[in-house]
Amino acid sequence: MALLFVSAHDHAPDWVAELTAQLPGIEVRVWPSGHRDVRVWPEGLGDPAEIDTALVWKPPAGLLASLPNLKVIFSLGAGVDALLADPTLPGLPLVRMVEPGLTEGMTEYVCLHVLRWHRDAPLFEARQRAGVWRQLTHQHLARERRVGILGLGALGGDAALALKALRFDVAGWSRSPKHLEGIATYHGAEGLGPFLARTDILVCLLPLTPETEDILDAGLFAQLPRGAVVINAARGRHLVEEDLLAALDSGQLAGATLDVFRTEPLPASHPFWSHPKVTVTPHVAAITQARTAVEQVVDGLKRLAAGRPLVNLVDRARGY
Amino acid sequence: MALLFVSAHDHAPDWVAELTAQLPGIEVRVWPSGHRDVRVWPEGLGDPAEIDTALVWKPPAGLLASLPNLKVIFSLGAGVDALLADPTLPGLPLVRMVEPGLTEGMTEYVCLHVLRWHRDAPLFEARQRAGVWRQLTHQHLARERRVGILGLGALGGDAALALKALRFDVAGWSRSPKHLEGIATYHGAEGLGPFLARTDILVCLLPLTPETEDILDAGLFAQLPRGAVVINAARGRHLVEEDLLAALDSGQLAGATLDVFRTEPLPASHPFWSHPKVTVTPHVAAITQARTAVEQVVDGLKRLAAGRPLVNLVDRARGY
Repeated sequence: MALLFVSAHDHAPDWVAELTAQLPGIEVRVWPSGHRDVRVWPEGLGDPAEIDTALVWKPPAGLLASLPNLKVIFSLGAGVDALLADPTLPGLPLVRMVEPGLTEGMTEYVCLHVLRWHRDAPLFEARQRAGVWRQLTHQHLARERRVGILGLGALGGDAALALKALRFDVAGWSRSPKHLEGIATYHGAEGLGPFLARTDILVCLLPLTPETEDILDAGLFAQLPRGAVVINAARGRHLVEEDLLAALDSGQLAGATLDVFRTEPLPASHPFWSHPKVTVTPHVAAITQARTAVEQVVDGLKRLAAGRPLVNLVDRARGY
Repeated sequence: MALLFVSAHDHAPDWVAELTAQLPGIEVRVWPSGHRDVRVWPEGLGDPAEIDTALVWKPPAGLLASLPNLKVIFSLGAGVDALLADPTLPGLPLVRMVEPGLTEGMTEYVCLHVLRWHRDAPLFEARQRAGVWRQLTHQHLARERRVGILGLGALGGDAALALKALRFDVAGWSRSPKHLEGIATYHGAEGLGPFLARTDILVCLLPLTPETEDILDAGLFAQLPRGAVVINAARGRHLVEEDLLAALDSGQLAGATLDVFRTEPLPASHPFWSHPKVTVTPHVAAITQARTAVEQVVDGLKRLAAGRPLVNLVDRARGY
């Protein structure tokens, strides 16, 4: 039997090397075979009936349904919204990626961009380009800055604790109640308003589900204090882009950092690229790390073989 | 008796308000009297013989020597190099500013700029300006990035622990031996080489003394791994500017963030302003906070009145 690796976004040889190192004797097939640098590896699917395990990021719709003996699907990403959007997705165990490398990378990104707005770095970057030296007589401290995390799963929870260690005044919101040491937590529809009212810098780390799609809209922005900042490192479809532009232009929002977009790559003509209040990064907030991620796959395969329950199994009704 | 406040860099009314709130009945004099917004306050020195306490940032040479009944000098900044450069400085107790607001502001600045280089933010900022979307297939984690702090006093020690909490691989160097939980520490002349050899991102938080002036020079840069980054948030005179430019141009250094300069404001014609590998901020890394700083002054005055030893007293032979 064989493992099928599918991703146009990752460097396949790194993954094949990790998989064969950590799962000696496994046959890894890389699809599509035309992927750069992978021509030395077995090309393409081969006999689909021989594939029992899939490790995938955005496989084409229908591909997984064409594998008659597939037993388990591992997502290369934390979000499985793209997989669940495939109506032919087989009803097999689906495991989302929760691995320390991805979590740590996301926490670094969130801390960097929260600090960047907290300390007015975009302003100082613009002043450097203009050659302007202007000092401050007052500075807000992190303990005076209220950060709010939307989503308190593996990613949101870790980011919240790191921001707390940086002395920010941190709260979090999630669908169901959560407890995190030192973090004020809110939940459900009734908790969202109070959470937003006390948030100067909002960070979205939600899973994308029918309930969370378009959550970052004009109605939500209006509930933030005037001059708040929004950071979206989750999914492009959480954000109503026109509403963000209007809130920036009216001054309701002072800035935004966006790593994800409704269309990626972000089209060259998109107003975000040159908007003075928007920082664009090209979906690089956190990258799944081959070594630690393959450890999760190995653990999952051992659990399956032993009949033990899988961890990070997706609840399809919930969407994550 | 009266307290004299001297600073052209701070908003004097905030300080007068804090001093009168925390020291009821004290007479505060602000010098120079022409300072913006302070004309409502007692103007100028008045009778110099009535001043027994000074709270100062860069007073003109000779001013403090003209106060016959001065008993103690509090510096508004952590570094007292400018005060000690005045040959007429009276031989009175001199207290440097160690207060939580200043420490926290510096730690925020250091974490921001270490994360910024760690995550290639200057590259992504330039790509946004060019409208270029380019993703990554690999990302170094903070735990794989070696940060080194020069100076492990109140500022360096706090920054080191915060970087450690962000999972960086942190080491520190100081003149005399120090112990910090989870931080590899080096000291003295013989410890500097091994410390530099393991440092990818170097942060200077040293006091400026005859021993540390010009410490950031070609010889030091050559001991860092090729492609290292330097962050200077201490004093401009720690850095040999031509040596930094040469190390950036040769590729020995990949980047620098500078908050302090030999001449401030940084002259309009200075090459740092437009250098693609240099981030310039206008001496804003950390600002002494009036409320918490005045608490330190109050504590010092109580100690003097009770004949107890002052804390953060400057050792003039050592220079800090």
